[in-house]
Amino acid sequence: MRVVANFLDSLRKVRLKLSTEKLVNSNQTPNSSAATGNERKWLQKSSIGIDHTEVPQNTPAGSDQMWHNIKRVLLMCGGERQAGGFEDAERPKDSSGLVDVLEAQRFVSQVFSAMQVPKQAASEMADALIAADYMGQRSMGIHRLPSIAADLLNCTVAGDATPGIVSEKKAIALVDGHNAPGPVVANFCMDLALQKAREVGIGWVSARSSNCIGFASWYACQALEQRMIGLCMTNAAPTLVPAGGIEPILGENPIACAASGVHEQFVADFGMAACSVDELELSYCNGWSKEVPKLVALDRNGKETTSTEEALRAQRIRAFQPEYKGFGLAAAVDILCGVMTGARYANQIQRRGVYSTENAPANLGQVYVAIDPMRFCPSFEDRLADFHRLLRQAMPSKVGKPPMVPGDKELQHMKMVDEQGGLTMSPCTLSVLDELATEFDIEPLKMKANKPINQ
Amino acid sequence: MRVVANFLDSLRKVRLKLSTEKLVNSNQTPNSSAATGNERKWLQKSSIGIDHTEVPQNTPAGSDQMWHNIKRVLLMCGGERQAGGFEDAERPKDSSGLVDVLEAQRFVSQVFSAMQVPKQAASEMADALIAADYMGQRSMGIHRLPSIAADLLNCTVAGDATPGIVSEKKAIALVDGHNAPGPVVANFCMDLALQKAREVGIGWVSARSSNCIGFASWYACQALEQRMIGLCMTNAAPTLVPAGGIEPILGENPIACAASGVHEQFVADFGMAACSVDELELSYCNGWSKEVPKLVALDRNGKETTSTEEALRAQRIRAFQPEYKGFGLAAAVDILCGVMTGARYANQIQRRGVYSTENAPANLGQVYVAIDPMRFCPSFEDRLADFHRLLRQAMPSKVGKPPMVPGDKELQHMKMVDEQGGLTMSPCTLSVLDELATEFDIEPLKMKANKPINQ
Repeated sequence: MRVVANFLDSLRKVRLKLSTEKLVNSNQTPNSSAATGNERKWLQKSSIGIDHTEVPQNTPAGSDQMWHNIKRVLLMCGGERQAGGFEDAERPKDSSGLVDVLEAQRFVSQVFSAMQVPKQAASEMADALIAADYMGQRSMGIHRLPSIAADLLNCTVAGDATPGIVSEKKAIALVDGHNAPGPVVANFCMDLALQKAREVGIGWVSARSSNCIGFASWYACQALEQRMIGLCMTNAAPTLVPAGGIEPILGENPIACAASGVHEQFVADFGMAACSVDELELSYCNGWSKEVPKLVALDRNGKETTSTEEALRAQRIRAFQPEYKGFGLAAAVDILCGVMTGARYANQIQRRGVYSTENAPANLGQVYVAIDPMRFCPSFEDRLADFHRLLRQAMPSKVGKPPMVPGDKELQHMKMVDEQGGLTMSPCTLSVLDELATEFDIEPLKMKANKPINQ
Repeated sequence: MRVVANFLDSLRKVRLKLSTEKLVNSNQTPNSSAATGNERKWLQKSSIGIDHTEVPQNTPAGSDQMWHNIKRVLLMCGGERQAGGFEDAERPKDSSGLVDVLEAQRFVSQVFSAMQVPKQAASEMADALIAADYMGQRSMGIHRLPSIAADLLNCTVAGDATPGIVSEKKAIALVDGHNAPGPVVANFCMDLALQKAREVGIGWVSARSSNCIGFASWYACQALEQRMIGLCMTNAAPTLVPAGGIEPILGENPIACAASGVHEQFVADFGMAACSVDELELSYCNGWSKEVPKLVALDRNGKETTSTEEALRAQRIRAFQPEYKGFGLAAAVDILCGVMTGARYANQIQRRGVYSTENAPANLGQVYVAIDPMRFCPSFEDRLADFHRLLRQAMPSKVGKPPMVPGDKELQHMKMVDEQGGLTMSPCTLSVLDELATEFDIEPLKMKANKPINQ
């Protein structure tokens, strides 16, 4: 059973003291009254559904079939279905909607429940998505719902599975995720790591048979409320090409790190790609940008491209510069997460959800570490505040614009969401959510009347 | 007492099976007969000596005084002393010398012994430098000898100190380095971490009151001969400016990772700077390049510069791109190494050696981790070989040029050194070593007759 019982309380702890306003009361519980057994129907009918007809089993990245599936989702509001997007005349064509954080959690949670995910697991999965949106990582947020839904409907993720411990010592454990949803495995492992850290100072928990966990920071941050340092790493489906190569061979394999002091907190989350495929997709489907920067993406012929569409078709992204560092770090993460745990690794991993043409489980590997800093230095929290002070005092290149400390961007975004009274959702996302509500007979997402302030 | 008793044996284990030749017998022991008590004299007389007259105590990075000291070392062979370099007429002006690996170890070890470092510690310090040269990281190798010598002579590093355990649990420990030389602290901690990993699967050892350890991979690699995974991180004197800032506030703070399989090994070492200051120095003093790439360095006014000299004067380097990732990773390493251990952190740290104008100990912090992969996955070594196979098979952009795997570059360099029969040393380095031999009355470095093949 999860230690973190209340989503908003955890978010508040992540947010710490930067914002002083009172947040909405969080006693609402998700209502899982909705649909049973209509999943396959939805999959077949919905435009999100995947076309599995006549697809070779090991379609390589960048195949036309995969692009066909991706495009169906990415363009569903602006492309194939109807120019300009959704049908709701109430919402102006170019404006974004505003949704209360807890209402968004309620809705997403119900979507998962409707797909026969147990209530607790559905709630954990929703938490992970909304936390990403709340902290400003929209490419890891609700935007990913169609892909996760497709996984559940295709039964490539076992919505009702629970992870189990394979082997265990005082400080380490190996967990088999049993193909449960990524956030469920991640929470299980992080709780176990934290428990070990409380007992012996450190907990290193490796997971296999896991799935995509989305926003890695969310799990690292769970160490904060227990005044620990949290680390989280995961491997992922290959999108990174090596320096001097044109074939995607490693995932973006992020490392997330979170540490909290009395007045300050540090949250850092680094994927090893020059630009994540998820961000390109978000940008593409919202029409934000048609160009990717130079040195970021290759096309299907292995040539440099600046076209977002070409980059998404090819799924061949370069590591951050210098490339040997980005690719090398991704390899190190894959060795710890994949090679060492018994999970898949490198290009053995296939994309899932709407991107998948293969029905086997993803079998991702992950590492969750919790460390009790007080065992090393009782004044850790004061020292961390001092560390932040030193970083903030660094002479800026523009007067009055002090350099940002890792975690500041996330905190600012959370404050902004609180001030404007909810999450900003793009027309494209709202269109997808509308469709899900209809399909699963869920109470539609309640919009807020007021418009966002800063977006 | 060190577990690794034989330097060349360890190097061989690092090198594994790529080279099949027999190496030189390594039974030579360093002869520590040389000089006692002539250190101060040498410091005052030598051109490497530091000018401490009328220097303010907290000279900021980029001060004229610091540049004055740096330049004395960097230009000693080509600049201030004599155009073109050293006086030895035997060696042609533009050629490099070739030195046997064990002879280099003997010489460096004797230099440290002559500065009253106990024999075992002197040998460990020499090992670290020669390993860097052997593995192709020359900026961390013998090139750094003058700076380390200055530290010992200034007594900012306690050559005869031994580290001690402050507190300990089964899987974790905090070590006080007692200001012993960096390699001595590092070896002590790595041995302890390995011992813990053998017992409980993981060892996480944090160190404070440590000094510069040089080539972080060398310590991570020590896990290989015990078939473990090794990680090593250290903080360092500030040279990195934050994005939007012009003041150096964090060190290059490298992370090194080493893992070994049956036929393959993985060695990765990443500093967070776009280009390390040590590399710029090496390049500058050998006259290899007068230009630094764009987006790498700032001058003393905080403006972008491509002049190596300006970059070295200012000591303001940017993190690798995207900058928030490089700087954020450096910050994460500093929190684990500095903030959490009781060591100094951020710009509290000052450079030492020839760069220092402050006499207090450096008090660096480090983290050494050893993990037993067999506890998680008994087939780890075969899987790692398979992982390498997948990476090597990735389609190259140029036919016949397969992408390199992290660790390949190091292995190739070690093989090259073996084939050519020794380390290539630049005229500048040889000039410094000549001077040290004279000053400390040590048997001069024996050169090899044959010239290098590949350089």
